[in-house]
Amino acid sequence: MTARQGRLYVVGLGPGDAGFLTHDASAALEEAEDVIGYAPYVARVPERPGQTRLASDNRVELDRAREALSRAAAGRVVAVVSGGDPGVFAMASAVFEAVEGEPAWRDLDIRVLPGISAMQAAAARLGAPLGHDFCVISLSDNLKPWDVIAARLEHAARGDFVIALYNPASRARPQRIHDAFAILRGLLEPETVIIFAKSVGRAEENILVTRLAEADPSQVDMSTLIIVGARGTRVIARAAATPFVYTSRKAP
Amino acid sequence: MTARQGRLYVVGLGPGDAGFLTHDASAALEEAEDVIGYAPYVARVPERPGQTRLASDNRVELDRAREALSRAAAGRVVAVVSGGDPGVFAMASAVFEAVEGEPAWRDLDIRVLPGISAMQAAAARLGAPLGHDFCVISLSDNLKPWDVIAARLEHAARGDFVIALYNPASRARPQRIHDAFAILRGLLEPETVIIFAKSVGRAEENILVTRLAEADPSQVDMSTLIIVGARGTRVIARAAATPFVYTSRKAP
Repeated sequence: MTARQGRLYVVGLGPGDAGFLTHDASAALEEAEDVIGYAPYVARVPERPGQTRLASDNRVELDRAREALSRAAAGRVVAVVSGGDPGVFAMASAVFEAVEGEPAWRDLDIRVLPGISAMQAAAARLGAPLGHDFCVISLSDNLKPWDVIAARLEHAARGDFVIALYNPASRARPQRIHDAFAILRGLLEPETVIIFAKSVGRAEENILVTRLAEADPSQVDMSTLIIVGARGTRVIARAAATPFVYTSRKAP
Repeated sequence: MTARQGRLYVVGLGPGDAGFLTHDASAALEEAEDVIGYAPYVARVPERPGQTRLASDNRVELDRAREALSRAAAGRVVAVVSGGDPGVFAMASAVFEAVEGEPAWRDLDIRVLPGISAMQAAAARLGAPLGHDFCVISLSDNLKPWDVIAARLEHAARGDFVIALYNPASRARPQRIHDAFAILRGLLEPETVIIFAKSVGRAEENILVTRLAEADPSQVDMSTLIIVGARGTRVIARAAATPFVYTSRKAP
């Protein structure tokens, strides 16, 4: 057998709706011989005869990355799929962590194809809440200590950034979202705009616009993306629809 | 003439390359009767017989938004086009600012279609430098005072966020990028990873990976997206290519 040049695509599927997919992502999914990812994401890739599909559990990013890299190194065209953007709290970081651990993988043909991340889809549904300077924070303390997260929340709040919060809650750490809101309540005005955007782009999509004083963090689950407004974030009430929300380009 | 329901799409074209376009964005550009935007973005939309194209200067976002909303209110299907994601330092905020100023526009059918923003495309080219908590800051002081920008840079640096900097320089304010780097040098280690990503997705694309001690801000122009690494940002050297850069999911 002659040596063949493999390739690894790290593909962002965007939020649920296929309309968010980029043309490059679609082309890579068609080209791939092997599709690898967390099971619900693999299920979103249209099946193609002859394509191998490897669906795995959520907690094994690094194993999944190594499997994908091994196959690409063996000459296969592989797509690792992520929801949202693989570069934003998704598979790309794990892939390059695996590459760093294995010198033979450094010269592989690896192409990251960005996707629409949950905060972008949520923002678009509402108007433009990310319309000015913002911070993006994962509340998961699986891989970083809570005090790092707490310090980042404080800096983001004191800097009057809009804040997008990923991975806000799970059964393993139900208290963290309450801790996060306690920090925000200590630093931000009660009328600060809060958005709970659940399952954006999927059938069960549900978006709530409220204020920090009224927000109930126990409504939040792992499929919720939270946006915390800045002082310049404004709400435009509408007659028969979710209000528009945007952050002014001007300092308030 | 019977009344007709107009619609306004606020469409993200992504960075230059058409492969970054989403399927929803392509469909909206085909459907639109009027395409409105800053001239270089309008030029990227494939021409279609019967479609009106209105290209304007960069500094008139609010006028452009009002023109688009007036046309939609008159029953036309209009697309306002932005590079990148319209929700990230682009047209969406101006559109909703215009909506807030005119109650008759609040119940229009307005659909924001997110796109791949410059930071995502730049990050994807390198690996996963935005792979953990990050802040996104525009260095433009057209609409906000410099002291707000300076305070946000400080908070972002002290919080050990990765930082993406948009609108880093212009002929009107050549000193600001030097001021920004002076702040970063006062707070971050000399070996902090710095990425200058120029014209990502276009023919003249040029990406430099360096360190804060060596970075020369005078190389930066308005088409450059800057990424400042966090303590967990790592560089993987390669034999014959730009190094990979990723930010670890773990706290350093």
